[in-house]
Amino acid sequence: MRPFEEELNSLNDILREMGGLVAQSIHRSVLSLVEKNEDYAHQVLRDESRINALEIQVDDLATTLIVRESPVAGDMRFVVGAIKINTDLERMGDMAVGIVERSLAAMRQPELPMDVSFTEMGNLVESMVLTCLDAFVQRDAKLARTVLTSDDAVDKLRNTLTRQMVDLMKQDPASVERALDYILIARRLERIADHATNVAEDVIFMVKGIDVRHRQADAAQV
Amino acid sequence: MRPFEEELNSLNDILREMGGLVAQSIHRSVLSLVEKNEDYAHQVLRDESRINALEIQVDDLATTLIVRESPVAGDMRFVVGAIKINTDLERMGDMAVGIVERSLAAMRQPELPMDVSFTEMGNLVESMVLTCLDAFVQRDAKLARTVLTSDDAVDKLRNTLTRQMVDLMKQDPASVERALDYILIARRLERIADHATNVAEDVIFMVKGIDVRHRQADAAQV
Repeated sequence: MRPFEEELNSLNDILREMGGLVAQSIHRSVLSLVEKNEDYAHQVLRDESRINALEIQVDDLATTLIVRESPVAGDMRFVVGAIKINTDLERMGDMAVGIVERSLAAMRQPELPMDVSFTEMGNLVESMVLTCLDAFVQRDAKLARTVLTSDDAVDKLRNTLTRQMVDLMKQDPASVERALDYILIARRLERIADHATNVAEDVIFMVKGIDVRHRQADAAQV
Repeated sequence: MRPFEEELNSLNDILREMGGLVAQSIHRSVLSLVEKNEDYAHQVLRDESRINALEIQVDDLATTLIVRESPVAGDMRFVVGAIKINTDLERMGDMAVGIVERSLAAMRQPELPMDVSFTEMGNLVESMVLTCLDAFVQRDAKLARTVLTSDDAVDKLRNTLTRQMVDLMKQDPASVERALDYILIARRLERIADHATNVAEDVIFMVKGIDVRHRQADAAQV
């Protein structure tokens, strides 16, 4: 095996470790709310610095690789993709921390009735994160496309939840803070899903060399 | 002038054009709300595809530059920085579109009383965007640091506004939707400020070779 391939593999390994940690943080952030469990919340806060440290490692390794190896087109797209995906993963970690900050307040209050399950929404988002990363490492555009479908499902869940919380706030002023917490938690989950979608679009771009990131922009420019 | 420098300049030019468009979109998104002006809102929606097209141009030019020129360390950091900043700029544009979507609904309703001025908040955020980009193009870490200070000011404005809107929602159920619109608009402005802060941190990293992105992470790892 050439050293360059070894380095690419170690780039993959760090990204996978980072993605695993991010997915775990998302899982725990939702679980902390649903199970009113502070331990999960504190684990998420602790793991953030590890995720941040991995982000720096990925950037350093990717930049070193580019400078030293001047990769050919396909590999270059992969390494540049790693730099972009890295940013998305780190910001997903930030969102998990944001969920936990709300969860630590919300878990002390009685739950509000809702038709949307945070567990369901969280599981969907978590699986999007793992899938987009698998798609990247395996350079699998078909797998990446499944992430785009899940994103629509997450948007729908968020819209349903927001509508219900608005109704609650109108009916019961005592529910305002909690309902706002729920809305903002759902929005953070949705933002994680958006990041996973960005990654999936980068993967499709990388593999196919086609830019699906801005289909409307493309259409407008053609 | 060497061709490589010319290409770097044209990378700067595209980024500046993109930054100018993004700043203009932020300005118009806030103005559309404050002045209840639909034209501004529609201009923002129209300019989004132009911003997206510029994002693709920046990625393409940066990747071509890396492959063809194998820049030395300092220039490489700059080109990789351009790829990262590009993503932030495009997402700021998305946030301006998000503000406009809320503004188009909110402008049809009577205004809610508030102590925070969206104009002030918008101007502050807009200037952060232009400043972080100037700092990047001029490779000026000192200028980049001023962006970090403004970010704290934006956070404070957002917190004040959120508290006031929560009080309003509790007192007057009829204000719930509008108050939530205001909260979400303020959050989008804050997210733009966060992106500008990310860019500023990248600039400081690029210029000084010091990673200020995760000061806590660094401390935890040392």
